Amino acid sequence: MLPPWVVLGTAYYPEYLPRELGDRVETDLDLMVAAGIGAIRVGESVWSTWEPQDGVFELDWIRPVLDGAADRGIGVVLGTPTYAVPPWLQLKHPEIAAERRTGERVPWGVRQEVDYHQPAFLFHAERVIRRIVEHHRDHPAVIGYQVDNEPGLLLPHNESAFEAFVARLRETYGDVDTLNEAWGLTYWSHRLSDWSELWRPDGNSTPSYDLAWRRFQAERTTEFIGWQADLVGELRRPEQFVTTCLAYDRAAVADVPLSSRLDVAAGNLYVHVQDGLERPARPPRFEPGWIGRSVADLYLAADRVYGSRGEPFLITETNATSIGGSHLNHPPYDGQLRQLAWAMVSRGARMVQHWHWHSIHHGAETFWGGILGHGLEAGRVYDEIAAIGGEFAAAGASVAELRPDVDVAIVWSTESDWALHFQPPLAHPGGAPDKSSYRTIVTAFYAGVIDAGLRPGVVPVERLGVDPVALVSRYPVLVVPALYIASDAVLDLLVAYAQAGGHLVIGPRTGYADPEARARAEVAPGRLREAAGVHYLEYENLLDPQPVVGLDGHATRWAERLILDDADVLASFEHPGGGRRPVVTSKSFGAGRMTVVGTVPDGALARSVFSRALDSVWSQLPASVTALSAVNPAGERLWFVHNWSGSPVSVEPPAGVTGGRLELGPRDVRVLGEERA
Amino acid sequence: MLPPWVVLGTAYYPEYLPRELGDRVETDLDLMVAAGIGAIRVGESVWSTWEPQDGVFELDWIRPVLDGAADRGIGVVLGTPTYAVPPWLQLKHPEIAAERRTGERVPWGVRQEVDYHQPAFLFHAERVIRRIVEHHRDHPAVIGYQVDNEPGLLLPHNESAFEAFVARLRETYGDVDTLNEAWGLTYWSHRLSDWSELWRPDGNSTPSYDLAWRRFQAERTTEFIGWQADLVGELRRPEQFVTTCLAYDRAAVADVPLSSRLDVAAGNLYVHVQDGLERPARPPRFEPGWIGRSVADLYLAADRVYGSRGEPFLITETNATSIGGSHLNHPPYDGQLRQLAWAMVSRGARMVQHWHWHSIHHGAETFWGGILGHGLEAGRVYDEIAAIGGEFAAAGASVAELRPDVDVAIVWSTESDWALHFQPPLAHPGGAPDKSSYRTIVTAFYAGVIDAGLRPGVVPVERLGVDPVALVSRYPVLVVPALYIASDAVLDLLVAYAQAGGHLVIGPRTGYADPEARARAEVAPGRLREAAGVHYLEYENLLDPQPVVGLDGHATRWAERLILDDADVLASFEHPGGGRRPVVTSKSFGAGRMTVVGTVPDGALARSVFSRALDSVWSQLPASVTALSAVNPAGERLWFVHNWSGSPVSVEPPAGVTGGRLELGPRDVRVLGEERA
Amino acid sequence: MLPPWVVLGTAYYPEYLPRELGDRVETDLDLMVAAGIGAIRVGESVWSTWEPQDGVFELDWIRPVLDGAADRGIGVVLGTPTYAVPPWLQLKHPEIAAERRTGERVPWGVRQEVDYHQPAFLFHAERVIRRIVEHHRDHPAVIGYQVDNEPGLLLPHNESAFEAFVARLRETYGDVDTLNEAWGLTYWSHRLSDWSELWRPDGNSTPSYDLAWRRFQAERTTEFIGWQADLVGELRRPEQFVTTCLAYDRAAVADVPLSSRLDVAAGNLYVHVQDGLERPARPPRFEPGWIGRSVADLYLAADRVYGSRGEPFLITETNATSIGGSHLNHPPYDGQLRQLAWAMVSRGARMVQHWHWHSIHHGAETFWGGILGHGLEAGRVYDEIAAIGGEFAAAGASVAELRPDVDVAIVWSTESDWALHFQPPLAHPGGAPDKSSYRTIVTAFYAGVIDAGLRPGVVPVERLGVDPVALVSRYPVLVVPALYIASDAVLDLLVAYAQAGGHLVIGPRTGYADPEARARAEVAPGRLREAAGVHYLEYENLLDPQPVVGLDGHATRWAERLILDDADVLASFEHPGGGRRPVVTSKSFGAGRMTVVGTVPDGALARSVFSRALDSVWSQLPASVTALSAVNPAGERLWFVHNWSGSPVSVEPPAGVTGGRLELGPRDVRVLGEERA
Repeated sequence: MLPPWVVLGTAYYPEYLPRELGDRVETDLDLMVAAGIGAIRVGESVWSTWEPQDGVFELDWIRPVLDGAADRGIGVVLGTPTYAVPPWLQLKHPEIAAERRTGERVPWGVRQEVDYHQPAFLFHAERVIRRIVEHHRDHPAVIGYQVDNEPGLLLPHNESAFEAFVARLRETYGDVDTLNEAWGLTYWSHRLSDWSELWRPDGNSTPSYDLAWRRFQAERTTEFIGWQADLVGELRRPEQFVTTCLAYDRAAVADVPLSSRLDVAAGNLYVHVQDGLERPARPPRFEPGWIGRSVADLYLAADRVYGSRGEPFLITETNATSIGGSHLNHPPYDGQLRQLAWAMVSRGARMVQHWHWHSIHHGAETFWGGILGHGLEAGRVYDEIAAIGGEFAAAGASVAELRPDVDVAIVWSTESDWALHFQPPLAHPGGAPDKSSYRTIVTAFYAGVIDAGLRPGVVPVERLGVDPVALVSRYPVLVVPALYIASDAVLDLLVAYAQAGGHLVIGPRTGYADPEARARAEVAPGRLREAAGVHYLEYENLLDPQPVVGLDGHATRWAERLILDDADVLASFEHPGGGRRPVVTSKSFGAGRMTVVGTVPDGALARSVFSRALDSVWSQLPASVTALSAVNPAGERLWFVHNWSGSPVSVEPPAGVTGGRLELGPRDVRVLGEERA
Repeated sequence: MLPPWVVLGTAYYPEYLPRELGDRVETDLDLMVAAGIGAIRVGESVWSTWEPQDGVFELDWIRPVLDGAADRGIGVVLGTPTYAVPPWLQLKHPEIAAERRTGERVPWGVRQEVDYHQPAFLFHAERVIRRIVEHHRDHPAVIGYQVDNEPGLLLPHNESAFEAFVARLRETYGDVDTLNEAWGLTYWSHRLSDWSELWRPDGNSTPSYDLAWRRFQAERTTEFIGWQADLVGELRRPEQFVTTCLAYDRAAVADVPLSSRLDVAAGNLYVHVQDGLERPARPPRFEPGWIGRSVADLYLAADRVYGSRGEPFLITETNATSIGGSHLNHPPYDGQLRQLAWAMVSRGARMVQHWHWHSIHHGAETFWGGILGHGLEAGRVYDEIAAIGGEFAAAGASVAELRPDVDVAIVWSTESDWALHFQPPLAHPGGAPDKSSYRTIVTAFYAGVIDAGLRPGVVPVERLGVDPVALVSRYPVLVVPALYIASDAVLDLLVAYAQAGGHLVIGPRTGYADPEARARAEVAPGRLREAAGVHYLEYENLLDPQPVVGLDGHATRWAERLILDDADVLASFEHPGGGRRPVVTSKSFGAGRMTVVGTVPDGALARSVFSRALDSVWSQLPASVTALSAVNPAGERLWFVHNWSGSPVSVEPPAGVTGGRLELGPRDVRVLGEERA
Repeated sequence: MLPPWVVLGTAYYPEYLPRELGDRVETDLDLMVAAGIGAIRVGESVWSTWEPQDGVFELDWIRPVLDGAADRGIGVVLGTPTYAVPPWLQLKHPEIAAERRTGERVPWGVRQEVDYHQPAFLFHAERVIRRIVEHHRDHPAVIGYQVDNEPGLLLPHNESAFEAFVARLRETYGDVDTLNEAWGLTYWSHRLSDWSELWRPDGNSTPSYDLAWRRFQAERTTEFIGWQADLVGELRRPEQFVTTCLAYDRAAVADVPLSSRLDVAAGNLYVHVQDGLERPARPPRFEPGWIGRSVADLYLAADRVYGSRGEPFLITETNATSIGGSHLNHPPYDGQLRQLAWAMVSRGARMVQHWHWHSIHHGAETFWGGILGHGLEAGRVYDEIAAIGGEFAAAGASVAELRPDVDVAIVWSTESDWALHFQPPLAHPGGAPDKSSYRTIVTAFYAGVIDAGLRPGVVPVERLGVDPVALVSRYPVLVVPALYIASDAVLDLLVAYAQAGGHLVIGPRTGYADPEARARAEVAPGRLREAAGVHYLEYENLLDPQPVVGLDGHATRWAERLILDDADVLASFEHPGGGRRPVVTSKSFGAGRMTVVGTVPDGALARSVFSRALDSVWSQLPASVTALSAVNPAGERLWFVHNWSGSPVSVEPPAGVTGGRLELGPRDVRVLGEERA
C-alpha cells in the first residue's frame, strides 16, 4: 500500500526510448530518487510488448525497472495494458472495434478503439492481465495496480451493445407501454408496439432515450473496470491496492459508481498553467474542455476526485510541463508546479504523479512534455519537481490523508451534465448551443465560493445520503446549480436540509426535470417552491450581461423570470424589454434558509452571493491569495495559503494560525498549522 | 370553411401530456375559448397513435377534443400524420428511409426521415389518411385539413429518385447531345454518350445539373402534397378546406406550384423577437436562417405567403413565446405578440395559429414554448394571446380577407435562390461563400422599401404574368434583385414594363444567367442593356462598405463596374484601386424608367433609392414606426400603424386617415380607417 | 521549343463556347495576336471530347485551332487530358475512383477523382495519349506538351495503394522489428509482429507513419507524371518540350523529384491582388491557402518554381483577372497585371500564361475570370494583357532565361511541411492547431528578406548539394526556418557552410526531428549547438506578440527558451512569467557566422534580423518599392523595380544602374540595366 506520507510519482516508460541510447534505467531511477520521486507507474500502454504475438508473452522486460525501483525504495504501480490493443488482436478480431455510429468502426491506429464488452477482447484481456499480474505480484517493488487507463472514451454503437441496451430497458420498464409513457413517445410518432421497434441511437432526438443511453454506457464502463479490479483483486498480494486513472470528462464515465469498485479513487488532473493560474482570474485563453482554465477549475477538479469516494485519493497524472498537442506548449511559470502539487495535497491527494518522466520522441504525444525533455537532461522542470519532492519529504505524514474543511458544498450531478449536453440551456454568441452548459454553470458557483474567501467542497448527488441533519452538520451551505435531472427524493432532501438549518442555494435549471429528463409538469421550481418563496413560468437567455442592484456584478446568459411568493429580493436587474426583475432571492425557511440564484452569476455576483451567506475566516485576503484548510488523521488543521500572482504579497492570518504575518513570494505557497485550543 | 373574421388559433396536442395529469381537455378548451381562440390544429404528428401497429387503427382518441371543440364553437383543422412515420413502418420497410447521399440512409429517430415517393410509404400513408379522414370528416368541428407538415426537408438521393431524375431529363432534353450542349458538359470531360453515364448528385459540381436536381426535388414535393390534397379532397365535405403548412426555407419547396394544389396558402412564420423587432433595425444577433431577424424579415415572410397564390392566406404556426432549441429562450417583450399578430393580418392572414398550446414535457422540442408553459398555468403569455383574441373579435370581418396596397413590388425567384446557393456571389469576411446570398440581397431591397415609408409587396417570378400594362397598373415600382436565373421572356417583360410606364429597379446579378444556370454570352445586362443605359464587363466583391455620393449610405459586398451608355448617375463611389465608379444609375425609358443598383445597398442607400423613386403617403414617420395599408372586400382601406420601439411616440397621419393625431404606446399597434371620398 | 524571348500565353478552350455563338476561332486568334500572345495551351481538360465513347476517337476538332495558330506564329502546348476522366470510363471501371478513406470512393462529378495507379485507368490513359500525340505531333504549331494537370490532389487510400505502401516499407526496412524501432511502435502497443498487421492510414496517429505515407503518395505522383512524360517523350518531335503544370500546394506533390522528370519546371501561380499587392504589406484579408496574399508570397511562389530545377521555368497559369469561386471576384487594379508579369519574368519565367482566354459560361469555374469576360468583348483586362505583350516584345531576348541574384537563400523542405501539418507547432487563437505552420514560418523569414531590401531566393533542401564552399559562393546568407525533418548530413552541411564563411540563420524547429519524424534524443539544437552557441530544453507558444529589445519588432507565436553557451544576444524579450529571455542570438563561427531566431518574427523583427546581416544595394528604398535583380545569359544584370502602391514615388538607384533618378507611377514597374564595368 501507500506509505504514510504523500508520494511524489511519475509515469515511467523506458521501453519507449530509442535503443541507440542504450540502457538508461539506472540513470533515470537515480535521478528520480534524487528528486524525491517515490512511485512510478509502468507498463499500462504496451500490450504489444507484453504479448508481441497471440499467446506469446514477454514478461521480463520490466524486471530491471522493478529491481532498480526496489533497490531504491521506489514503489511501482503496475498497469494492465488493456486500453491499447495490439495490432495482431485487431487483425484477428476486427469485430472488437467500437462502432462510432452503427456499422461505422473506429479505425485502429490510436488507442481505445475497442468496445470493451466484445468477448474476443475480454478473453485476450483476461489472459494478458493474469499473466502480467501473476508474474510480477510478488515483486517487492509492486505496491499496487492500475487497471486500464482513462476508460469510457467512446459510446460504442455495436450491435451487441445496442441489444444489451434494449435488454436493460426491458428489465427496467417491463413493457413498451410503460416505456412509451416514461419517455413521452407519443411525440412525433415514436410510440413502440414491440421492443424490436426501438430505433438506434444514431438518429435519436429524444432526451429520455439519450439519458438512458448515457447511463447504460457509463454502467458498461463501470462493469468493465469492476471486472478488471475484481480479477486483479483476486491475484494481488493483500497489501497491494487496485485503482484505475479516471479522466473525469470522458463520455461514458460515472465516477461515483465506478470508483466504488476500486480501493482508492484516482484522477488525472490537467490545467492550463501560466496566466490560467493567475488570480484574480483572467478571461480564459482557451476553449473549455478537459484542461482546467483557472485556479477554481483546479480545485473543483481535485474536489471531484475527493468526492468520488468522499475520501483521500490519488492524482495519477498531472502537468509535468507543457501538455496536450504539438501546438499547445505552455510550460509553467517558475513556482507553478509547486503550487499545483500543494493545492492537490490540500484537497486530500495521497500521491501526485507527474506525467511523465521524459518526453517521448515519437507517436501522437511527442510534444506532451516530461520532467525530462527530449534531450533527457535535468533542467528547470526537473529542479522544480525535486523541490516538491524535498518539501513532501519534509512535511512527512502530517500532510497525508487530509480531509478538507468545507464551508460551502457544491452538488455535482453527472446525469445533469449529460442531459444538458443533449439539451443545452446556454448559447454561444451567435446562437449555437453551448454543450458545456452544465460545467459552465457549476464552475460559476464554485468560483464564487473561492472568490468569497470560503472553503468549497464537492458532493456528488449520489452521495448526498438521506439524512438532512447530517447534511447540515457537514455543510453550512449547500449549493445546487443546474441540477436538471432530479428525483423527488433528492428535491425533498434539499428542502429538509434547509428546514433543518442548512442554507440551500439553488442555481438555474435546478429541479426542472425528472429522472427521465422530462420537464416537470408543474410550476417551477415545483417541490422547491415553498422553501424558495418564488416561482416562475418563464425563463430566457440573456444576450448581454445585465448589471444587478442589491448585490455586485451581473446576471449573465440566463434569467428565470422570478415571481415572488414570500421571499426577499437580494438582487434585481433592469430588463432590456422594460421592468425590474428579481434574480437573486432568499427566504428564511424552517431553521435554515433558501436562496435562489436565477441566473449564471458573473464573478462579482457569485462572490457577493456567498460573501453574504457566510464570513471568511481570513478577514482581508488579497485578491491573489487563496487560503484553504484541511484536517489530518491526527486532528490537526492545516492551512494552505497560495499567492497565485507574480508579485509578492503580505497576508495577516486569523488568530490561531501559527507563524504570524505571512510574506508570500511570487507564485508562492505556504502550509501553516493552527494552535490547538 | 373559415368564418368571415380573422381566426386566432393554436396547435393542440393533449395526447402529449403525461397521463398522471388526468384529462385536461375540458380545462384547456375552456381556457382557449376565454382567450378567443377559434381554431385548433390536431393530430398531424402521431401516426403511431392513429395506427399503433400495422393495420391496427385507433381513431377515437381525438373524439373528446372534437366534441369539446364543437361544443364551444372551435373549428378543428385535422392533420394527416405522414411527416412522422411510426417505428413499425420503418422497421418493416427500411427502404423508405431517405438517402442523404447515395446509399447513406437518414437514421430514424426524428421525423421526416423518409423519401415520400417510396411505394411502401405511399401505400401506408394512403391507408392511414383514408381511415382518419373517413372517420372524422362528418364531425361538425372539422373545418379543414392540413396534409403533411413542413414538407420538403430533404433531397432524397435514393436509387429510385435518381432514376426518376434521369427519366425526367430524357423527357426534357430528348437526347444526350442536347443535354451536353444545354449544360456545357464538354467542360472537364463531362460529355455523356448515353443516359446511363449521368453521374450521381453526390459529386456534382455542374451548376446546370444542380439547378435541374433542385427543380426535380421541388416538383417531387409538389407532387406528394398534391397527391395528398387530391386524396383528402375526394374524401372531405365540400365546405372543408385542404392546405398544408409550409416552411418556406425548406430545400425542396417551390411555393407557387405547391400552393396551387391547395385551397389556400399556409405558411409557418417565426421571428427573433425582443430586440429583433426593434426599429430602427439593430444589427442582428443571430445567424440568418429560418427565423426572421427584423421587422422587414417579418413582412417579407408574410408577403411571400401572400405571394404564393396572390391572395389571403393562413399562418399555421408562429411564435407563442420562445422558439427553437433549448438554448434559444427569448420570450417576446410585452406587446410584441400583439404586434406580430396584427402585422400578419395586415398582409392578408385569415388565421393566425400560435404554436403551440402548451410546452411539451419531453422530446426534441421541450424548450419550444407554448401559450401555457410546462406548469400548464395561464400567465403573461396567455394573457397577451387573450388580448389578441379580444381585438380580433372586436374587429370582426372588417380585417379579414385583406389585400395589401403595394407601392413597390419585389420579384422573388426561388430558382435564383437555388442557383446562388450553389454559386454564391457574396462572401463572408475571410472569404467563405455566403450561401444566403440571394436572400441577403433581396432583403436589402425589401428593407429599403419599408425604411422609405413605402408599402412593399412580393410577386414571385412565376406570377408576373405576360402583360406589362397590367403590371404597371398593379405596381408603380418593380424591384428585381438577384434574378440570376431569368428566361428571355421574363427579361423582355421587364423591359416592356418600363416601356409601358413602370419604374423598373434591378439589383446585382439580375439577368446574368439563363434558365440552365449558364452565364449569358453577352455583355451584361444583355437584354436589359438598352433600357438600363449602362453595361458592364466586370464585377467585384467589396471587402469594405464604400460610402457613395449622390445618395446616402454605402455600397456593400458587391459592385458591378458600370459603364454608362446613356443613363444618369444617381450614386457613385471612390474605388479603393482609384477612380470614381457609378453604382446606381437611372434612365428614363419609354413611358417609364429603369434604375440599376449595381451593389448590395446598405440600409441608408436602399432607403434613399426608394425615397427618390416614390413619396411616402405618411410625410413624417418616426423611425420606429411603420404604416402599411390594405383593402378589405368591402373596399375599405385600413392602415396598420406599429410603433416598434419601447418608447411612446406621436404620429400625424395623412389627410383622410381617421382619428387625428395618433399617440402610440411602447410596442403598440393601431388599426385606422380612411374616410371615403 | 520556346522562342528566345519571354512568351505571353493563355489557355484556350474554344470547345467550351456555346454552339449558338458559331465559330470564334479566327476572331479569338486575331485578338490574341493583336495582344502579343505567342502561345496557347489546349485540350487538357476534355478526354470525353477526344474519346467520346470507349475506343471511339475524335481527334480533329482541335485542327482549326492548330492551323490558325500556325498561320499566326502562335505556339501550341498540347495537353494530355488524363486529369478529367470521361463518364463512360468511370462507369465501366468504377474501381478507378480514388478512395478518400479506405472504402469510401470519391464520387465522380468534378475532376481528378481517380487513383492514377489503377491499371484500368493507365490502360485507357496511355491509349488516348498515344492517339492525341501521334495525331498532332507533326503539326507545326505544336511546340510542346503538358502532361496531366495539377497532379497530386488526393491521397488515394485504395487497397492497391495501401498494399504498394506496405511493399515499399518492406523494401525500405526489411523486417518489422526495424520498422518498430524506426517508428517507435512500442508506443501505445503499435508494435508489429508481421507486415500484415500494419494498420490503415485512416486511423493513424503515428507521425513517422504519416510522413512515410506522404512520401509514398508523392512518389506515386512523380511516377505517374514521369510515366506520362516518358511516354510523350518517345512520341514527340525532338524540338518539342514536355512539362506538366504544378499546383505547389497539392497534398501529394514533391516538386523537386517530380520536376526532374520533365524538360522544364512549370507552376501555376495565383495571387490575391488588389490590396494584397500593396506595400508596405497590409494584414491579409483572406485565409492562407493556395492563393498568395502578398508581394512576398508572390516572389516566394515564383522562387519555388525556379528552385524546383534551379533554372528558368514556365508559369503555366496565373491570374487573368478574378480567380477562384463565385464569391471571390477581385479583379486587379490598373497596372497590377503588368506588375505580376514582370515580377515573374524577373525570377526566371520563360513563359507567362494567363488563365484563361475567356470566362466559361457553365461548370464549376463560371466565375473564374478570363482575359475576355462572358460577353467575349475586349475590355480593360484585354488591354492590360496587350500592354504586357507589347513590352515583352520590346524587351526581346534580353529578359529571357534570367537567373536571379540572391543575397539570402531560404531552404525549403517539403517533408517538414508535411510533418508540421501533422504535428503543427503553432496554434490559432483559441487553441486549434495551425496546419499552415510550416508555410507561415517560412513566409515570415522570406518576407523579412524582401522588407530589408535584399534579394531572396529559394533552395529546396534536396538541392543543397554536399559542398559547403560552393554554397558559400552561391549564397552569402542561408536561412533555414522550420527545417523540422533534417538528416544528420544536412545538419552537418549547414554547420560546414557557416564554418566555411557563410552566414547561417536558423528559425524555430530547425533540426529538431530526424528523417523518421522522431524528435531527436539530444539537447536542441543538437548537431547545430556548437555553431549556434546556444541550446534549449524548453520551448513555448506565445499567446501574445512580445516586443523585443536589441532589434525591432516582436517575437510571435513561438519562443525557444534559449540558454547561452557562447553566443551574443541580438534580441530579447520580457517573459510574461518573469525574466528576460534571449530570442535572437548570433555567434561568429569558423569563417562565418550562425544566427538563431528562436521565434516567428513579425515583419519588423524579420526585417531587422536581415538588415543587420547584410546591406541592401539600394540604400534608400521607399517602403512601397522592391528592387530585385537577375542576370541574363549574356551576362547582363537587370534590375526590376516595382512601386506596389497607388501613389507615385521617386527612387535613387545605386551607382552603376542606368537611367538616373527613377520616377515610378502608381503600381508601376521598370526594368533597368547596369553599366558594364
